[in-house]
Amino acid sequence: MSADVTRLALPDPLPLDGGGVLDQVVIAYQTYGELAADGSNAILLCHALSGDQHVASLHPVTGRPGWWSRMVGPGKPIDTDRFHVVCANVIGSCMGSTGPASAAEDGAPFAMRFPVITIRDMVRAHIALLDALGIERLHAVVGGSMGGMQALSLAANWPERAGRVLAIATSSRHSAQNIAFHELGRQAIMADPAWSGGDYYSAQIQPAAGLAVARMAAHITYLSEAALTGKFGRNLQDREAKSFGFDADFQVESYLRHQGSGFTRRFDANSYLYITRAMDYFDLAEEHGGLLANAFAQTGARFCLVSFDSDWLYPTAESRHLVHALNASGAPVSFVELSAPHGHDSFLLDVPALDRVVKGFLDG
Amino acid sequence: MSADVTRLALPDPLPLDGGGVLDQVVIAYQTYGELAADGSNAILLCHALSGDQHVASLHPVTGRPGWWSRMVGPGKPIDTDRFHVVCANVIGSCMGSTGPASAAEDGAPFAMRFPVITIRDMVRAHIALLDALGIERLHAVVGGSMGGMQALSLAANWPERAGRVLAIATSSRHSAQNIAFHELGRQAIMADPAWSGGDYYSAQIQPAAGLAVARMAAHITYLSEAALTGKFGRNLQDREAKSFGFDADFQVESYLRHQGSGFTRRFDANSYLYITRAMDYFDLAEEHGGLLANAFAQTGARFCLVSFDSDWLYPTAESRHLVHALNASGAPVSFVELSAPHGHDSFLLDVPALDRVVKGFLDG
Repeated sequence: MSADVTRLALPDPLPLDGGGVLDQVVIAYQTYGELAADGSNAILLCHALSGDQHVASLHPVTGRPGWWSRMVGPGKPIDTDRFHVVCANVIGSCMGSTGPASAAEDGAPFAMRFPVITIRDMVRAHIALLDALGIERLHAVVGGSMGGMQALSLAANWPERAGRVLAIATSSRHSAQNIAFHELGRQAIMADPAWSGGDYYSAQIQPAAGLAVARMAAHITYLSEAALTGKFGRNLQDREAKSFGFDADFQVESYLRHQGSGFTRRFDANSYLYITRAMDYFDLAEEHGGLLANAFAQTGARFCLVSFDSDWLYPTAESRHLVHALNASGAPVSFVELSAPHGHDSFLLDVPALDRVVKGFLDG
Repeated sequence: MSADVTRLALPDPLPLDGGGVLDQVVIAYQTYGELAADGSNAILLCHALSGDQHVASLHPVTGRPGWWSRMVGPGKPIDTDRFHVVCANVIGSCMGSTGPASAAEDGAPFAMRFPVITIRDMVRAHIALLDALGIERLHAVVGGSMGGMQALSLAANWPERAGRVLAIATSSRHSAQNIAFHELGRQAIMADPAWSGGDYYSAQIQPAAGLAVARMAAHITYLSEAALTGKFGRNLQDREAKSFGFDADFQVESYLRHQGSGFTRRFDANSYLYITRAMDYFDLAEEHGGLLANAFAQTGARFCLVSFDSDWLYPTAESRHLVHALNASGAPVSFVELSAPHGHDSFLLDVPALDRVVKGFLDG
């Protein structure tokens, strides 16, 4: 499936939750399917921490299929014969939207001069993009994990902009354990001397070792204990017996090393710092007077929440917490906990029940 | 409580599971309480990954009370008025027993020339120590976490040496997730340029940044999600509002940084590599023809297993798996899952029910 790679310069400076504005913001985005003449069929798809706008087309760096190719396309659950799908790289990221690797006013990369952003800032940039594209009201906003946070933030802060909100495997706030894993990753990056306080762009190398460790930590949280056992157990990697050394004897070690090193070829370490920080700061209730139901007081949207029973990163209890708040605010909400063995990553993987839920909610 | 710090040179080379022998092994150990004239009251206490022989006396480096001061002492659950408690630093560690920081035959530190050891090798060294001390048969062998693995290994491989086996918050093998977390820690250490392939001793600095990250990862696994939430939640550290920066805004971040950096002042990074490797290699069934019950075919000991409902590192299912094997082998075993909110660390913390179980099993 082909798609246009497009970049758009926002016409106005972007106000930020931390104060101040971000000037000359560029948003890289992809669209799939035609926008209807009346503009009624647009879906904003929000990507997760390490995702990007390449939802359903080949990734320009890795050459691999887009991260939700199984879900988005002609005749697929998010049917591009019917819907106009927009997916924008979040600000702070590194696939074309303005982030720490972008040039600041002085021409040098922002690096750590980039402002700390929030999930709401990311969504504010999405809204500015939709404005520029002439999409006044979305048929739906959809996202999993950090994408789900953006969907919820859009519903809470721009309630008139979306008719449906589909949030998968997500949470209304980061727990202490969520923060702990992200802090671990940030410390791994910052401990790498190649990080150099974030000023590594001129050296043409990035703190790959630290970023790989951060990614390894994250990957452990994306899979359930049962999934790791089912996938790897204590199986050895390409050998008959333990080496009594420090090679990757076990398949799970080899897998993690591969995930870690592969990630460093497509992702910027400073972006990892900024995006994890935005997620840790996310607390939808706190933004709305400490009461989560308040966040949805103005919404007229229909909501659908999906959790997975094996997800220990954003467990079902987090989705239930959201459902209770939506109930309290009087919003129509459907909720399903799906059974899938893969852990948090289930939202990206082959879970036919998810396909049915997504299709049913968007078409219905 | 005072105690003699003692080191003993083993008279014979120590055979290793990986092949070969370790020559001139020194074991650092502590004892508490008097050995009975008939030698019948000795308890071998086995320490965990980051523990050492300073069970119930001030730690010489940190100046803090021993790691199980609450459990071991006169009138305490492991009553030193009654029992002679022996605790030895495991080989591979760094508190006086032979490990990677020790001098090899050429006078230079072993560093990564130290052989990869196993849990059974650690226990083999304990047995050699007991031989040297003239302790033929233990009243009991006791340990939590990696200490529990040692207790089980002793029961399986030297079945005549202990009358009782108390294994707390432990497992018969490392799961894929257990291995994953350890591999993450090892990669963090090895990614630190100060590690220098393990040859950092002459530089007088160790790969502290990498070791701190490894320790942070481990600490996340030692506490339950609920314990982290109860202890820290999303509370901010010494500030009224988020800083919109990368300081430790959240208490959980500050806690992890503190745990990480504190650890580097008392623990050797290479020891961390070797000991985590030994734990990852641990698979008691594999050592005994693939059937866990076989491991206990020769035992005449009584067993007591304890797990904690909030421990997700070595969850109750692992203890149950052991209980089933012990039942199959005909060994007398009592098992209790205790309710405690602290996660894996519960075995070190104030859990009065654990005190009663320990005292009851050792005294009964």
